[in-house]
Amino acid sequence: MHRTSLEFTSEQRLDDGVRAREFTLGDIPGILWTPESSTVEQPLPLVLIAHNNGLPMRDARLGARARHTVAQGYAVATIDAAGCGDRPRTAAEEQARAEFRRAMQSGGATDEAFESFVGPLVEKAAPEWRTALDALLALPGIGGPVGYSGWLALGIRLAATEPRIAAAGFFAGGFVPRAQREEARQVSVPLLLLLQWDDEGNPRQRALDLFDAFGTKEKTLHANMGGHVGTPWFELEDGGRFFDRHLK
Amino acid sequence: MHRTSLEFTSEQRLDDGVRAREFTLGDIPGILWTPESSTVEQPLPLVLIAHNNGLPMRDARLGARARHTVAQGYAVATIDAAGCGDRPRTAAEEQARAEFRRAMQSGGATDEAFESFVGPLVEKAAPEWRTALDALLALPGIGGPVGYSGWLALGIRLAATEPRIAAAGFFAGGFVPRAQREEARQVSVPLLLLLQWDDEGNPRQRALDLFDAFGTKEKTLHANMGGHVGTPWFELEDGGRFFDRHLK
Repeated sequence: MHRTSLEFTSEQRLDDGVRAREFTLGDIPGILWTPESSTVEQPLPLVLIAHNNGLPMRDARLGARARHTVAQGYAVATIDAAGCGDRPRTAAEEQARAEFRRAMQSGGATDEAFESFVGPLVEKAAPEWRTALDALLALPGIGGPVGYSGWLALGIRLAATEPRIAAAGFFAGGFVPRAQREEARQVSVPLLLLLQWDDEGNPRQRALDLFDAFGTKEKTLHANMGGHVGTPWFELEDGGRFFDRHLK
Repeated sequence: MHRTSLEFTSEQRLDDGVRAREFTLGDIPGILWTPESSTVEQPLPLVLIAHNNGLPMRDARLGARARHTVAQGYAVATIDAAGCGDRPRTAAEEQARAEFRRAMQSGGATDEAFESFVGPLVEKAAPEWRTALDALLALPGIGGPVGYSGWLALGIRLAATEPRIAAAGFFAGGFVPRAQREEARQVSVPLLLLLQWDDEGNPRQRALDLFDAFGTKEKTLHANMGGHVGTPWFELEDGGRFFDRHLK
């Protein structure tokens, strides 16, 4: 297997004792957040934070989640995988994206439109996340175990196929392609599924069905009132304790 | 209103710095758990723990929950309300109970059987809990605000009609009479509903419908795998943090 090396391209020391380093790994850009005080002697567990494809890795909300998680004693990383965030796109990808957005905005995005747009995104993103995981775990001071947090469809693929992932916190707000609805049965790690009860574009019943379908015995659902972006702040702390139970 | 006075009948000092005092309030027997170190100067918030009618107030699981909650800085109380726990029952009540149990055990308890048994229990228990609340809040060292934890049907009645209850943690495993299904819309305090996904006798969809029906905006559902008695230990801690957010 061709091994691309991880190169740090910038470094920021943030007020709250967090070090944020951007890196590239071949074509893949990413960010690694670690506590300033971390040492090689006590390698940290790693949490991968993946946002649904719409948001770039430099998004402020994603950064805030990462910093909160670092403060609990984790290394945290994200990447802009192929087709996601600010990654350059081919003309065909741009067109597919533009068409999909138009359909979304006019309220006319059918399941098939979602399937054709999100399905390939997951297929392309998953191997890049695996490449990033290889490189991150090879860094001094990062020892695993590995947790996954965020984008449901990608997380199902990774949790079902990547044995290094030991626990997964999923956000139910996002379309899950057919392949991942099937793969959910193969997920056997502890998981926490976070559901916004009245998420505009994501039917509640699908999330409940998916929760039921997951193969793991140790699964918890947290549902809160409100729409897609209304997750209450305390769920960030609950998610942290979920990881503490399984990664520490 | 006739005011019965609360009289302590026994006292135990438990290993973990918890004081457990049994009391009577007229015909109502109860237990109050407080930290040994509590003072009149810093009155404690109060959590009422009510178990579904089957278990008496001296049940070990209920006591363990109470002690854990006291350790977080609360006074905790429970009573055996009319018809519940070890309270003396009339011949008619004994017969209704025996008939209901037989129906349950043979798997033949219909909704109507539940309705006729649980409905009157809630009606009789609620005023006694209110009497207990009056007396407990009059004690030195207990200042409120008041949280409620446990038995869903009774809790709906109390949360819907008792303005002193500021937050409610409900366990979804138990039949909810028609009157309380209606009253759920009038509940407006923050609530946490705990659901066992495969609770033998309690259909999941009813719990989800009830969660949807509650009038409060600040409601959270926690669902975990397993049957009626399989609630994972970490939910006790989550419940504690829920009360911390709303009662402290």
